Amino acid sequence: METKAQVLYDFTAEPGNNELSVGEGETITITNQNVGGGWIEAKNSRGEVGLVPEDYIEIKQAQPFTSGGNAASLDLSLFDSHIPTPAPASTAQTSNGNDPWAVFDNNASGGVSNNWAAQPEGTETGKTSSNAWHSGGHGHPQAYQGPGAEDDEWDEEWDDVKSSGGYAESDAGEGGAINRGGAHGSSMKIALNKFPGFSKSGPEVFLLSKQPAKGTKLPVYGGEVGPVWAYPDYQLDCVVADPKKGSKMYGLKSYIEYQVTPTTTNKPVNHRYKHFDWLYERLLDKFGSAIPIPCLPDKQVTGRFEEEFIKMRMERLQGWMSRMCRHPVISSSEVFQLFISYKDEKDWKTGKRKAEKDETVGVMIFSTIEPEGLPDLDLIEVEQKCEQFNRFTRAMDDGVKDLLTVGNEHWKRCTGPLPKEYQRIGKAFQNLSSVFTSSGYEGEAALTDALTAAGKTYEDIAQMVAEQPKKDLHFLMETNNEYKGLLGCFPDTIGVHKAAIEKVKEADKLVATSKITPSEKTTMSKRASTMSYALQAEMNHFHSNRIYDYNRVMQQYLEQQVKFYEMIAEKLRHAHSQFTTM
Amino acid sequence: METKAQVLYDFTAEPGNNELSVGEGETITITNQNVGGGWIEAKNSRGEVGLVPEDYIEIKQAQPFTSGGNAASLDLSLFDSHIPTPAPASTAQTSNGNDPWAVFDNNASGGVSNNWAAQPEGTETGKTSSNAWHSGGHGHPQAYQGPGAEDDEWDEEWDDVKSSGGYAESDAGEGGAINRGGAHGSSMKIALNKFPGFSKSGPEVFLLSKQPAKGTKLPVYGGEVGPVWAYPDYQLDCVVADPKKGSKMYGLKSYIEYQVTPTTTNKPVNHRYKHFDWLYERLLDKFGSAIPIPCLPDKQVTGRFEEEFIKMRMERLQGWMSRMCRHPVISSSEVFQLFISYKDEKDWKTGKRKAEKDETVGVMIFSTIEPEGLPDLDLIEVEQKCEQFNRFTRAMDDGVKDLLTVGNEHWKRCTGPLPKEYQRIGKAFQNLSSVFTSSGYEGEAALTDALTAAGKTYEDIAQMVAEQPKKDLHFLMETNNEYKGLLGCFPDTIGVHKAAIEKVKEADKLVATSKITPSEKTTMSKRASTMSYALQAEMNHFHSNRIYDYNRVMQQYLEQQVKFYEMIAEKLRHAHSQFTTM
Repeated sequence: METKAQVLYDFTAEPGNNELSVGEGETITITNQNVGGGWIEAKNSRGEVGLVPEDYIEIKQAQPFTSGGNAASLDLSLFDSHIPTPAPASTAQTSNGNDPWAVFDNNASGGVSNNWAAQPEGTETGKTSSNAWHSGGHGHPQAYQGPGAEDDEWDEEWDDVKSSGGYAESDAGEGGAINRGGAHGSSMKIALNKFPGFSKSGPEVFLLSKQPAKGTKLPVYGGEVGPVWAYPDYQLDCVVADPKKGSKMYGLKSYIEYQVTPTTTNKPVNHRYKHFDWLYERLLDKFGSAIPIPCLPDKQVTGRFEEEFIKMRMERLQGWMSRMCRHPVISSSEVFQLFISYKDEKDWKTGKRKAEKDETVGVMIFSTIEPEGLPDLDLIEVEQKCEQFNRFTRAMDDGVKDLLTVGNEHWKRCTGPLPKEYQRIGKAFQNLSSVFTSSGYEGEAALTDALTAAGKTYEDIAQMVAEQPKKDLHFLMETNNEYKGLLGCFPDTIGVHKAAIEKVKEADKLVATSKITPSEKTTMSKRASTMSYALQAEMNHFHSNRIYDYNRVMQQYLEQQVKFYEMIAEKLRHAHSQFTTM
Repeated sequence: METKAQVLYDFTAEPGNNELSVGEGETITITNQNVGGGWIEAKNSRGEVGLVPEDYIEIKQAQPFTSGGNAASLDLSLFDSHIPTPAPASTAQTSNGNDPWAVFDNNASGGVSNNWAAQPEGTETGKTSSNAWHSGGHGHPQAYQGPGAEDDEWDEEWDDVKSSGGYAESDAGEGGAINRGGAHGSSMKIALNKFPGFSKSGPEVFLLSKQPAKGTKLPVYGGEVGPVWAYPDYQLDCVVADPKKGSKMYGLKSYIEYQVTPTTTNKPVNHRYKHFDWLYERLLDKFGSAIPIPCLPDKQVTGRFEEEFIKMRMERLQGWMSRMCRHPVISSSEVFQLFISYKDEKDWKTGKRKAEKDETVGVMIFSTIEPEGLPDLDLIEVEQKCEQFNRFTRAMDDGVKDLLTVGNEHWKRCTGPLPKEYQRIGKAFQNLSSVFTSSGYEGEAALTDALTAAGKTYEDIAQMVAEQPKKDLHFLMETNNEYKGLLGCFPDTIGVHKAAIEKVKEADKLVATSKITPSEKTTMSKRASTMSYALQAEMNHFHSNRIYDYNRVMQQYLEQQVKFYEMIAEKLRHAHSQFTTM
């Protein structure tokens, strides 16, 4: 049977890579779904065959139902009208698109030496030849391998840098604007379609689940500020440092490896960007319904091996890791612990595979949450809290974006026109001084020396002004950028809760029409209360972190600003002292 | 006999004032040359009759020769080719245009009450009716009167403010640009055509003059820095203050009177702007060939009675008066002393008339200069000095204009976009703070209070930034503006010297062809040497003042800049201290 797919986004083939250009809305036929590396082979209506990114298409024919065993037996279509609209990124996944590893289990054959051929695009390190792509025809080499393979099973593109990126940090020093607003994605991809077999899925999977909860329990306690997660005694943190350039395929491909050292073990582990990305995907799958997982720093950046780029990516990976470390639920999760403290390659591989098979993902994470000694909340309270958080996160999102806009403007001015102006003032003074020197009048030197010095001072100030944003505004921007990313995840997280509330609201009607039992209704209500405690704990975590972060960044900003203005005043005081008092 | 005149500049009649529109190059017939107040009555080719400003026309028919007694008998046309081209303003004068007082002596009749009718244009205080202008036909009322009249004999327009002025100081506070570059005229009008009867005149008038020098001797001594003027023991200065609004014609006309108090007498005298202008004209006539007389602050300004305008004009009149006071030749001149210390109205009137009849004007001022114990300079030295001064003043003119341009840009930025940006930063902080306040999370107050305070601090800084230019850049700009005006006078002054040098260069040829005697040639050379000493003394005066002025203004600027940045640092330090250390 032919498998058809609909193209969701325009995709332009890169020449020489056997890719196929497709347009949004176009219907294509899948010719090989097992290409791997995030690609499928497809044929268009004109009979042209080529590779198309999996994420760009939606497979039309439903896969055969292969129950995971945790599906509720209920007719979930009842809830259709209240299912939250998933973000485009969510729908843009094929049935196995969420699980890039699935293919490896099915195709544990082929040579390691061929795996570079599966790369979907050429990079600056060398283009794959056109023939390499078709070397296998339908038997396209399935390069990604099982346990015996090197760490190459990930698609290289994860480390690659596209020159079309919006972030141009390296330009910043010379008046270039930084597209800071685009540095983080603004929504996470919650895997609402995680469970194959449901045409639609949502919080009802949890609300009506009859399966016993699997996995570590996540208690919520009543703290001083309200419901809180269980915080560990020791605050985990880690240091991302020492980026090293590595290469493979005899130098054809190169990558950067970062050293991650947790404060607990103090034993460094190495990770490439794509490993971070893998961790992100795991955390998103597992916790995303309850905990907003901020996106990783953008992949799309310029200047791959430029120092500035590496430094910036490292700094942002550090920020991301520190935020994850600070989260009591995430930092204590098995997958996170694996990431920061695997013992050896074997340990890592085993742990990885285990994490990928974790079934307590999506909304099922709520099944592990256990409010300790907290009374069940009624639906009104649940809804009020949810609305309050929604309002707050939206308002903060606006506030943060506003600050980012203003900051970006200020950055541009401070690195562009303002220092140029100070430089021109400096030059004008020096120029006048050199004219004065030519006067032939005696006793001119005291003035001209002082005037030249004043001119140079303004040139120094120009330099200081241009460099200052990196010393203060940068951190303010980075922090707000992080929060922008984090706040962008809230609509999805809150959406899950809103959908759950809607479902519980329908419970009475469903009982009345005997679609569910009164006991099931009670369960739903109780579970919605549990979800609310999770959300409240998460919000309180967010608030406490927010207060900490903004306190810290504002102090840092103001401290640096004080130093900056003091230094200017000092320089000018010195310049002033060189004029003779008359 | 009909008197024809050629129109030098386009003039557009103001409706209802009996004025006549004329175009550059047009020939008109003078119908009444004795209208007064700077106007003549003329008829165009279409037979239309109306008033035209004297300054806009050149009377074609030479006036009968009425020797002033100080004309050289030589055929001065010999020098025609070397006569410096006078500035357009110089040629734009009719034979009596240089002497606005001449008419009063010839027409000492008519009533005071009619004198306002002679005003050439209506102002915001009331328009003269169309009929009033023609009430006298050829017998147009000669309003300006002799000694018996009030202080109304000057044309009111001197005090008037036209809205078309380029200077918009009052806009400065709100991001408006100040047209500082145009605040002073850039050249003075040396009255090269001062002596009626010569079709052309120039330094030859002095070089070959057979008249004994009249008036106070102006010695030049050999000082440490070279030739210098005789400086008085006591440095004169005066204070221009206490502007008062006066009115006359039952409130129809109003004006501002400034109080001028010299430090010598400490006895204030009152002067209107037009009196300053009269003084300027007298100084220009008398000293302009030897000493650059800077123009008065522009008449063309907006906002007549706005405080800012009055303050600014007063400040600039003060600057102008102080500069005049500092000049040893000008400050000790009879006309200047009269201006600052006349005893009563009678004294003033008498002195005024005397000053206007002064014959030692134009190049004849050089006849009063006496180099004391200084050897005659040969022509090469004279020429070298002249060239050097020319180069220097041009270079400084460029430097000053450059600084003014940069300063103007900086002014705009500091009063426009920069404070707006600080304000937006401040608002963004405050906005974020108010979002935070809405969180419902406990223990938020410490952060939100501090964040609000930080936001307000940036708003304060915005205010400070916007107001700072008035505290420092203003004086830097004013000083450079003054120098721009002064430097704009040098080409005329230096032009007189260059013309003299050219004439002396021709002397040999003239002797060879017996046009002048060898003795006359010696006189010419000696007089050129005297002129050079005058120029050198003037340049040394200029240099010493320049060093003083720039030293002072730079110190003032830097001092204020230091204070400014220190205050910002202090404000930010305070804002910083409000955040809690964690």
